Amino acid sequence: MRFDIITVLPALLESPFAHSILQRAQKKGIAEIVVHNLRDYATNKQKSVDDYQYGGGSGMVMSIEPFAACIEMLQAEREYDEIIFMSPDGVTLNQSTANELSIKKNIIILCGHYKGIDQRIRDIFVTREISVGDYVLSGGELPAAIVVDAVVRLIPGVLNDETSALSDSFQGELLDAPVYTRPADWRGHKVPDVLLSGHEAKVNEWRHEQALERTKTRRPDLLE
Amino acid sequence: MRFDIITVLPALLESPFAHSILQRAQKKGIAEIVVHNLRDYATNKQKSVDDYQYGGGSGMVMSIEPFAACIEMLQAEREYDEIIFMSPDGVTLNQSTANELSIKKNIIILCGHYKGIDQRIRDIFVTREISVGDYVLSGGELPAAIVVDAVVRLIPGVLNDETSALSDSFQGELLDAPVYTRPADWRGHKVPDVLLSGHEAKVNEWRHEQALERTKTRRPDLLE
Repeated sequence: MRFDIITVLPALLESPFAHSILQRAQKKGIAEIVVHNLRDYATNKQKSVDDYQYGGGSGMVMSIEPFAACIEMLQAEREYDEIIFMSPDGVTLNQSTANELSIKKNIIILCGHYKGIDQRIRDIFVTREISVGDYVLSGGELPAAIVVDAVVRLIPGVLNDETSALSDSFQGELLDAPVYTRPADWRGHKVPDVLLSGHEAKVNEWRHEQALERTKTRRPDLLE
Repeated sequence: MRFDIITVLPALLESPFAHSILQRAQKKGIAEIVVHNLRDYATNKQKSVDDYQYGGGSGMVMSIEPFAACIEMLQAEREYDEIIFMSPDGVTLNQSTANELSIKKNIIILCGHYKGIDQRIRDIFVTREISVGDYVLSGGELPAAIVVDAVVRLIPGVLNDETSALSDSFQGELLDAPVYTRPADWRGHKVPDVLLSGHEAKVNEWRHEQALERTKTRRPDLLE
């Protein structure tokens, strides 16, 4: 699977893609993540990628031409399944969208900045607009990293059995039960007896009860 | 405002905090962001920060001792308003939580990994559990960066007037209207006439209609 990310801040994305599971997925050849500097596709003398907005108002708007040039260069090389624009007014990312994207082959992600991007980019090129949540961020870079992380870890072969995505929260219907590790007693704060009992059926029953209770308290919407 | 982030992958967070608005906020002395390597607080010979989970099951659990050591070191230096654990079963981040956090002084953020963290860390130290959305990620690092970005940009003095946080999505009740910049005609795709009219009242009316229409179509829940 290949991600092409188009941004004015390629350096911001250096470390998130160079560590942990995303690093492993790239080393294994399962995922390819290419970050493009939008400024390299600026067509005017000043190498600018934004301009004042029509109709007036504060805030610069990202121009159509550099995005178009970069997207069309990529499309000349391979077919893309999706061109995603990270935007606070997009469809909110959830695990089912991540699952759906994880079976695609080539995806372009556009990162917005400033006041926004020229609406024509969205109308002409973008196939899907995704928001990572109802909050405002400085740009689409962290959201793009979130999408790549959420999606890549679902591709078979990326995670080992120990960390299998199948046992993650949101893949089942319930939140996870509390987990504990050594020491059994930390300054008087003890691990629940049942987990030390060695009685597998009781452990499973306790975990199910706890998961159900936590879901009821914290996320009753998941049980509806 | 100061953020202390405790993680096993400090390198992953290098570039997100070194660019754009977060860099500017730190240079201006408005925000201080300190990343701590949890492994520096491991107490055993192997410098391990995780262990098998009580009761059996796959996946390692992060131990209480290194987190406790790092948190208590920090608490000895200053008072903290919040100790936040980034977790998929936390309360979903929204703009109102970001606003609320932006008036705090010192915040610790714990990044989880693997199967999770020992429940006693959550019970004893954590004051608030935050999720950035209903999707599973490899760890709490990107979510921590999201929280820091969403919060820091709200602190007065971080953004200039041009990019003022007050005009952002979610600060008002409606999504933003479409924006356009030059050229007025791109391969036959034209900017709406009204935006070129120079008639301010008509522009404002069009923007309001578009914002309302977009909100109705995309996020009717925001209008309820």
